[in-house]
Amino acid sequence: MTGTLYGVGLGPGDPELITLKAARLIQGATTIAYPTLAGGDSFARAIAADLIRDTAHEIKMDVPMTTDRAPAQAAYDQGAENIAKTLDAGEDVVCLCEGDPFFYGSFMYLNARLTSRYTVKVIPGVTSVTACAAEAGRPLVARNERLTVLPGPMDEAELRDRIAGAEAVAIMKVGRHLPKIRAVIDDLGLTDCASYIERATLPEQVVVPLSQAPEKAPYFSMILLTKGADPWL
Amino acid sequence: MTGTLYGVGLGPGDPELITLKAARLIQGATTIAYPTLAGGDSFARAIAADLIRDTAHEIKMDVPMTTDRAPAQAAYDQGAENIAKTLDAGEDVVCLCEGDPFFYGSFMYLNARLTSRYTVKVIPGVTSVTACAAEAGRPLVARNERLTVLPGPMDEAELRDRIAGAEAVAIMKVGRHLPKIRAVIDDLGLTDCASYIERATLPEQVVVPLSQAPEKAPYFSMILLTKGADPWL
Repeated sequence: MTGTLYGVGLGPGDPELITLKAARLIQGATTIAYPTLAGGDSFARAIAADLIRDTAHEIKMDVPMTTDRAPAQAAYDQGAENIAKTLDAGEDVVCLCEGDPFFYGSFMYLNARLTSRYTVKVIPGVTSVTACAAEAGRPLVARNERLTVLPGPMDEAELRDRIAGAEAVAIMKVGRHLPKIRAVIDDLGLTDCASYIERATLPEQVVVPLSQAPEKAPYFSMILLTKGADPWL
Repeated sequence: MTGTLYGVGLGPGDPELITLKAARLIQGATTIAYPTLAGGDSFARAIAADLIRDTAHEIKMDVPMTTDRAPAQAAYDQGAENIAKTLDAGEDVVCLCEGDPFFYGSFMYLNARLTSRYTVKVIPGVTSVTACAAEAGRPLVARNERLTVLPGPMDEAELRDRIAGAEAVAIMKVGRHLPKIRAVIDDLGLTDCASYIERATLPEQVVVPLSQAPEKAPYFSMILLTKGADPWL
């Protein structure tokens, strides 16, 4: 009887935005797994820290942020094997995931490696998209409006087309792409419809109109753009 | 000193997918508010039922599902006034919202009416989009992929264009629009890339390939379509 792998979404950063189900699984976990950024800290582990047993066995995956995908894939291969050993011993593994496991989450790489051989259960989490909307006081979509979620690294022409054709847009992973994204939104005359949010729901959170966004943005930053077609009144 | 209005996301339906923060606010609430469907039950209240104090004062908003928007808007006008009376008395109000308050949530109508006069705080919740992906075991987006969220009532031509131009698509509020949506997806040759999910995370949940979807779909149903460009390996 092998163990079950749980991919547990932790939400955007505020530990209180963890779900009751995720909290129960983490508090009961004898083995947890999580990615670390090239030997550095793990944001996921930090969010869940107060819920993790002192005695829990911890499987770390050191994922390098290189443009060459091979080193990262090798890290997930190794992590999947370590997790598999625990599952084979009949023990469950709770994998900690920032946000939601299946929404730009690294858990997808473990799921792809293990789902055919083991029981994998995914616990959804609050995404940064709705967390940023809440913190910015900016409703996203109502009734028959459409939401488009775009990653910041997209090339300029496509970014322009996608933004022009959408009602509500969330641009993720802004980071070093901020100047390019800002230029596109300015050019479309939509700057006054956009908010810039970084590290949503954390103590160091920043929420400002896009026109007041800093020159440099961290990886965990987002631009929300709503054209406000619907006054909801 | 007036009270604070909390718009609290409850997630997709499983009471365990409520966040720790939402649970704390509901358990402490002396006044809660929620919409009911034309005198019927309230899905939001049902999700939170075990957390609500026996002594809590309950403000109900009877929202008719008519194509004419005026009756629904009148119901939100009345609800906002009832909530305002409690806030004016210095008491907080916790408004219960299925899913996330700013993601197709009725709370947006109350926010529009009250945010200029009172302190409004929104607690984000797990959306049905990532809950359906988790239950279907279907990763949504990774790396530089884009997600498009579409409402089922969209007209066929636009639905076709949006689906054709996207990598991952979540079609919300499928309901009576299922035949139209299915025809578009079949026509695009994408039926094998699509899952049908109804009442995600509830005991009566249904998760099947789109090809096996029932003839009639409830309002709380979704189609997830991922073209699987990225094997995540």
